[in-house]
Amino acid sequence: MPARRATGEFALIERFTRALPLAGEGIRVGAGDDAAVLAPPPGEELVATADAVVEGVHFDGQFSPEDVGWKALAVNLSDLAAMGARPLWALVCLALPPRRARDAAGVARGLGACARRYGIAIAGGNVTRASELSVTITVIGAVPEGRALLRRGARPGDLVAVTGTLGDAALGRRPGAPRALALRQRRPAPRLSAGRALAALARAAIDVSDGLVQDLGHLCRASRVGARIGAADVPRSAAYERLAARGGDPLLPALAGGEDYELVVALPPANLAAAQAAARRAGTALTVIGRFVRGRGVRVVGPRGEPIALAAGGHDHLRAP
Amino acid sequence: MPARRATGEFALIERFTRALPLAGEGIRVGAGDDAAVLAPPPGEELVATADAVVEGVHFDGQFSPEDVGWKALAVNLSDLAAMGARPLWALVCLALPPRRARDAAGVARGLGACARRYGIAIAGGNVTRASELSVTITVIGAVPEGRALLRRGARPGDLVAVTGTLGDAALGRRPGAPRALALRQRRPAPRLSAGRALAALARAAIDVSDGLVQDLGHLCRASRVGARIGAADVPRSAAYERLAARGGDPLLPALAGGEDYELVVALPPANLAAAQAAARRAGTALTVIGRFVRGRGVRVVGPRGEPIALAAGGHDHLRAP
Repeated sequence: MPARRATGEFALIERFTRALPLAGEGIRVGAGDDAAVLAPPPGEELVATADAVVEGVHFDGQFSPEDVGWKALAVNLSDLAAMGARPLWALVCLALPPRRARDAAGVARGLGACARRYGIAIAGGNVTRASELSVTITVIGAVPEGRALLRRGARPGDLVAVTGTLGDAALGRRPGAPRALALRQRRPAPRLSAGRALAALARAAIDVSDGLVQDLGHLCRASRVGARIGAADVPRSAAYERLAARGGDPLLPALAGGEDYELVVALPPANLAAAQAAARRAGTALTVIGRFVRGRGVRVVGPRGEPIALAAGGHDHLRAP
Repeated sequence: MPARRATGEFALIERFTRALPLAGEGIRVGAGDDAAVLAPPPGEELVATADAVVEGVHFDGQFSPEDVGWKALAVNLSDLAAMGARPLWALVCLALPPRRARDAAGVARGLGACARRYGIAIAGGNVTRASELSVTITVIGAVPEGRALLRRGARPGDLVAVTGTLGDAALGRRPGAPRALALRQRRPAPRLSAGRALAALARAAIDVSDGLVQDLGHLCRASRVGARIGAADVPRSAAYERLAARGGDPLLPALAGGEDYELVVALPPANLAAAQAAARRAGTALTVIGRFVRGRGVRVVGPRGEPIALAAGGHDHLRAP
């Protein structure tokens, strides 16, 4: 088994890391030793999560290597946003086929651009051969002690509110989608500022990676409550409205589309005005789409309160076709 | 693009996490939320590293799913050992083809066994579809402030010393290798206790993942020194001696074999007796194999001081065949 690193791999690691921000807050020893040495910020707790993007599953040939690098980091940063955390350090494992070794630099450029944009340093990682391209990242952030925004905590009577607009990323996967929607699919913008601003005002949060109804369902289960949302209240962009009108259920992508990386929060009604002002300062809108209720499950209703049944949302990509 | 999680994936994540130790020191909120909330131990620095094992690159069909899970964690723990750190938390990303979904439980069993053996908790991660099986892990440990054992720090005159025996894992890859050697290949035992015991006595350390000469070369470069080691002084097991005598250069696997996950340290001569006693208490031997010298590079010499040239050690697995 050719299990060991050799010259070509070291050169590749060097090419990969060159485009990345390797210094940052608390990095005492960065990439290059057996491990990084990191000083945790005093009085804060750490928030950590890990996820992968895999060719043919999370991205396709429409993605440039730069898009892949950006998205791999952005989807992880979105989880930090949902916790109300500020980003500190990322560890990045790149896997790629030898014939695509030159894509490493592009992935690094996209990843580096995202890291600089959101203020996270790359503290370590590795590059390995594989039969398909994938990027697996762990991100570590910080929150003031006891202040992490969890999925649990929503109470009946709290408002269901979402940042930005939903469904854009799903429509961005359609052939011929306008560039603005395609970019929401390929270069998601994690709501880090909004997450931090809302952490003191919201009781619970989750990011929309799998689709609004599904992710809100996770939040409801963790909080042991139900939710009732108005389908038409879900905020949609102008580009969405133009494209969605052309075919299919015009609300389905917003309700079940996924990959928008907006935040859904549970908000005590008394905090609404402050939360909307905070979101605005963080560069986004915060729209009320419903209420948390006693019970369980997410009920979607039409303009006259009539229940709307959603077709099974996501493709189950862990069942063999 | 089927980019989202759906029912089957959640069931798989549940099956995967069931066998893992999810609670541990400092885990305020573990797997299941958008991210884990972790309390860093006061007065300590964190040590973090990430690496992947990929089917066909780092393991083959000889590996059971349990072996894969064990090894994926062990190779990362070995980096913590080389830093003198104690393990705290791991984040695990499993990627696997849908047709092999049932292997997830086996990978989790091996990973869980390794985690329990070495006292690390699984704080988060994810499961994703991919065309080949891989496990990518970030491990986070702790060291007293300023006490991490780095690659830099070796000085001319320091002894080159290694724990345990070398070359076993390389011979364990040979068809028909005895079980003891095959296990060193499939179930490596990271030298965590020895690493912590040696941290106060050694000036620098690295773990042997790529092969003694190559890894010692990394340590020399980081420390801006050279090293001179005696080929015959490299410690070899009895099983190694029996198998190595059957063909090929009998010292090459020990010098360049890789994947033994022993530690190489730079030791001030005055600390030798204390270091050997500390290693013994940690369950291993510490053998002097040479000296650090002024200059650069690793020179391997025979019993009469004659230079031995090594054939290019590792297979360069990032060049296409």
